[in-house]
Amino acid sequence: MSASLLEQLIDAFRVLPGVGQKSAQRMAYHVLEREREGGRRLADTLAKAIERIGHCRRCRDFSETDICATCGSASRDAHQLCLVESPADRLAIEQATGYRGLYFVLQGRLSPLDGIGPRELGLDTLAARLAEGEVQEMIIATNPTVEGEATAHYLAQLARQHKVRPSRLAHGVPLGGELEYVDRGTLSHAFGSRSEMPD
Amino acid sequence: MSASLLEQLIDAFRVLPGVGQKSAQRMAYHVLEREREGGRRLADTLAKAIERIGHCRRCRDFSETDICATCGSASRDAHQLCLVESPADRLAIEQATGYRGLYFVLQGRLSPLDGIGPRELGLDTLAARLAEGEVQEMIIATNPTVEGEATAHYLAQLARQHKVRPSRLAHGVPLGGELEYVDRGTLSHAFGSRSEMPD
Ligand SMILES: [Zn+2]
Ligand SMILES: [Zn+2]
Repeated sequence: MSASLLEQLIDAFRVLPGVGQKSAQRMAYHVLEREREGGRRLADTLAKAIERIGHCRRCRDFSETDICATCGSASRDAHQLCLVESPADRLAIEQATGYRGLYFVLQGRLSPLDGIGPRELGLDTLAARLAEGEVQEMIIATNPTVEGEATAHYLAQLARQHKVRPSRLAHGVPLGGELEYVDRGTLSHAFGSRSEMPD
Repeated sequence: MSASLLEQLIDAFRVLPGVGQKSAQRMAYHVLEREREGGRRLADTLAKAIERIGHCRRCRDFSETDICATCGSASRDAHQLCLVESPADRLAIEQATGYRGLYFVLQGRLSPLDGIGPRELGLDTLAARLAEGEVQEMIIATNPTVEGEATAHYLAQLARQHKVRPSRLAHGVPLGGELEYVDRGTLSHAFGSRSEMPD
């Protein structure tokens, strides 16, 4: 017997993070009982977003256009480049701090066992950009996890090869934590008191 | 400035129950970063479900067909009719108990201040059904809230008018709680030890 459309819908909701069987059921019933209009909008927007949102050619962040609004903005300081693991981390920094420089989104971190090396993180593009000579400081905001620290170390070496000064967010971000979930105050403080990385 | 598609997507996710700004952000980023295929399936299934899932003409539960599978089944006992407030409550009872009778889904509870009276709950249809004479016991499984109890009382009177025996789930379901969130064991026990309602 094939699954009913309702069962298929409950199953489909489980693709969302943190959503198990029970929450998926609640979501399906809630939408069908009380939010058909909002549910239709969600379906439309989700389909459209998946179709149209790609990555900025310059910073690898999500973008509907070839070059994102931040990279294309004349009012951002091109001397500072902040490196983050994910678009969510970039958003967290943008919302919590007064940073006016540019970003580079790795879309991951070095993880040799998973086959994620420098190429997968776009570090060839990054190296070419550093070679342009405009970037003076590289703010390395990878997560303070083992892999994030190893990635930071690798990035700092790459920066020095191009005479770019690497810096790292100050302690204050809890060790082993995920940047995305750090409260604004802590993140803002850590960002402000970043220090130059030792050799 | 109009909202970007990403912002629209984050906003659209907030239609889901229990999803605030932060969770909506996580959902949008998660789907775009790691689950585009699953996200596409969710968008499709959601649109299809909203378009095709209506209500069973006999029990008012969700159904893709005019009469749902339960109402159309020859193996269910038509002498017992279980009344619940919502499709989610019906599902909770179906999954937790060995009940083999039929259901009637009120899609709400009496709430005069919100303009929800007997007609909005389909009680005219219910009365016509009781008049058919096949139902012998009406198991009233409305929530143990003030409005749910008032609804139960009203339903019990309707049952007696048609010489149908009204019963109510046993205590065990926590007062003020929502049936949908009661654990299976408690719900199963309460269902099994339901008692006839006093006049
Ligand atoms: Zn960009
Ligand atoms: Zn039915």
